[in-house]
Amino acid sequence: MVSRRVALTAAGVGIAGVAGAAAVGAAMMDEDRSPAAASPGDAVPFYGEHQAGIVTPAQDRLHFAAFDVITKDRAKLVEMLREWTAAAARMTQGRDAGLLGAVGGQAEAPPDDTGEALGLPASGLTLTIGFGRSLFRDAAGVDRFGIADRMPAALEPLPHFPGDALRPEISDGDLCVQACANDPQVAVHAIRNLARIGFGVVSIRYSQLGFGRTSSTSREQATARNLMGFKDGTRNMKLEDTDLLREQLWARASDGADWMAGGSYLVTRRIRMTVETWDRTPLAEQEAIFGRDKGEGAPLGQAKEFDEPDFAAKGADGEPVIAKEAHIRLAHPDFNNGAHLLRRGYNFVDGSDGLGRLDAGLFFIAYQRDPRKQFVPVQRSLARADILNEYIRHVSSGLWACPPGVTGDGDHWGRALFA
Amino acid sequence: MVSRRVALTAAGVGIAGVAGAAAVGAAMMDEDRSPAAASPGDAVPFYGEHQAGIVTPAQDRLHFAAFDVITKDRAKLVEMLREWTAAAARMTQGRDAGLLGAVGGQAEAPPDDTGEALGLPASGLTLTIGFGRSLFRDAAGVDRFGIADRMPAALEPLPHFPGDALRPEISDGDLCVQACANDPQVAVHAIRNLARIGFGVVSIRYSQLGFGRTSSTSREQATARNLMGFKDGTRNMKLEDTDLLREQLWARASDGADWMAGGSYLVTRRIRMTVETWDRTPLAEQEAIFGRDKGEGAPLGQAKEFDEPDFAAKGADGEPVIAKEAHIRLAHPDFNNGAHLLRRGYNFVDGSDGLGRLDAGLFFIAYQRDPRKQFVPVQRSLARADILNEYIRHVSSGLWACPPGVTGDGDHWGRALFA
Repeated sequence: MVSRRVALTAAGVGIAGVAGAAAVGAAMMDEDRSPAAASPGDAVPFYGEHQAGIVTPAQDRLHFAAFDVITKDRAKLVEMLREWTAAAARMTQGRDAGLLGAVGGQAEAPPDDTGEALGLPASGLTLTIGFGRSLFRDAAGVDRFGIADRMPAALEPLPHFPGDALRPEISDGDLCVQACANDPQVAVHAIRNLARIGFGVVSIRYSQLGFGRTSSTSREQATARNLMGFKDGTRNMKLEDTDLLREQLWARASDGADWMAGGSYLVTRRIRMTVETWDRTPLAEQEAIFGRDKGEGAPLGQAKEFDEPDFAAKGADGEPVIAKEAHIRLAHPDFNNGAHLLRRGYNFVDGSDGLGRLDAGLFFIAYQRDPRKQFVPVQRSLARADILNEYIRHVSSGLWACPPGVTGDGDHWGRALFA
Repeated sequence: MVSRRVALTAAGVGIAGVAGAAAVGAAMMDEDRSPAAASPGDAVPFYGEHQAGIVTPAQDRLHFAAFDVITKDRAKLVEMLREWTAAAARMTQGRDAGLLGAVGGQAEAPPDDTGEALGLPASGLTLTIGFGRSLFRDAAGVDRFGIADRMPAALEPLPHFPGDALRPEISDGDLCVQACANDPQVAVHAIRNLARIGFGVVSIRYSQLGFGRTSSTSREQATARNLMGFKDGTRNMKLEDTDLLREQLWARASDGADWMAGGSYLVTRRIRMTVETWDRTPLAEQEAIFGRDKGEGAPLGQAKEFDEPDFAAKGADGEPVIAKEAHIRLAHPDFNNGAHLLRRGYNFVDGSDGLGRLDAGLFFIAYQRDPRKQFVPVQRSLARADILNEYIRHVSSGLWACPPGVTGDGDHWGRALFA
């Protein structure tokens, strides 16, 4: 049974003293005590050819974290990746990160799980790891962990795009973990426990919560809406597009880095939206900017969301029905050498900005086989001409090599890379 | 049927031009087009003797916002409160804040709803308004809107508590709205549309998202866990405690402010937790600090969560089983003149703090009949001695007079106050 058990027995508990408290008789049990909380059906398999959390039908909530590696010791880093893998395999199946209490039934050690997800089901949790360029070679070019020669060419730094307002402190990073789940408490719990396990080896560089997945990754899912109120991701690559995924999602050994075969490259961008300005824009202008109608999400001139846009059609006034600078046109594969992306971004609201505006927007997440041929040309096209730029600002950027899946108990995140 | 309709028809759409776009034929319809999205059962009634969102069984997600009133015009403020009430009555029933498009079917005006909740059900949304002391009288003592003589005595400023590290820019405010829902996109949508409607009259001072309700407000709900991993709110006042609610939750005309009869006073505190330090604390110490065991949530020395704590019991070493400074003891009504609170706080994680730590904690929300007799003495007791203080810091504080419910179509938020 897959269920996050309550692992503490209170039998014979008798606390003595307060600070530094003495040991108590709380016995640890690695078994279920709350079968009612079990939801075997909502666990996503952890092991497999590819990492979960990429084509997995997008869950509703996100906790994304980027980490700096703070040790110089390669062995410690690899050992932590091994521990992370074991904890991820447990947590994604609705179990604790480790035994709740101390080894051997003692209560004198900090718990091996922080406890806030006790009793909650797996909630579709997936944990997806990525390696940043700085893990291979730091800004000064130093080969930190003896893996510089294994850096994939596809990790070439993203170019500066017009309008970029990137904040270095919330960009890049050595490692990232994307936690997606249908319950934010479960996603938060997972990242927090990885950070706890990594104490002394890694430190959280930045983290981002998100909700309301804006890109469906399966034809079974309805297209959700971004905070501009439009359906987002109608043309997304989806898990049913097996030929396209093979061609444009999964890296191959022949791409240059053999350890990345079956992996994928991830681009993250925190895109702040000035929603207050947007909300004062006429409906017709909003629709012209996107190139879709707001209610149904159909390409302008068409009736239904999934109708093909007619980019050649002209209105009575002789102007294109879908404007030359419309988002839907600039981002379309037809105008980007056939490039597709698998997007699974999330809306965010991080309070307000001190100027009376919500700090809101889209945490953009896109997987692909090669960013140089996919994200970069598409974003170049958008950054140059998209009228949407008036209402958005890219403030954070990350580029990550996400290795293939972990295949079994002897395997762990980064094994092939560090082999 | 209560369902957020898709109000746009795309019939005959033909966009001409881009910026400033010409009118299109998008007709507005105030009817449902997506019956599949209807969930009549998940709407909480808006009208009633008391505001919803207080004893309503706590929903899973929070978007709380505090507003500054930026107009000096009393009539404009009252008119906005009237518009807010109408929009709240619609949105809580799963409808748009207003017609999606412009009046009369024109597309030349900004939409009356921002659109991101289109197709989503009511999701248990409640919107609860509160008035801050500064609405009645500003820091210089000026009677801004002619209501200074109606300020309830219970809005007496909270005292400074030992350890308070309050940041003024995320404290207090003229108005607050607590949006609770089972879908964060719905809660975010509601606050955003109120802010949009209030443009020129109010400005968002600060806002806070939360998840994983930490205090159940009904005996039908399991007690959820805070980010320290402990069950939180076991002893909360609950909607089934009708006698206690009458005595300790709802204000009466005889309390001094007649317009507050049937209302309640709200204290909000943003409590940052240093979870990384907590996570390195031994289990026995964590349990001694709370005075409960972590797994079951039982008072130390007892077996089950709802067992009564025995504060007199001593262990074999002669020390109290529940320490003198344990949280459960300091907060207990027996040691606070019988004071209860109705808490419905939420966990939060707002990214990280730039020092490698999660910016995480509890957004504390507590309703009561009189803070001077309830929150203040309890918090005094906790602030003075609670060992938990080593791991938490209060960084934001608000005190709000939440009026009674809106009783029908002629009524609106603040009507009795401004009458």
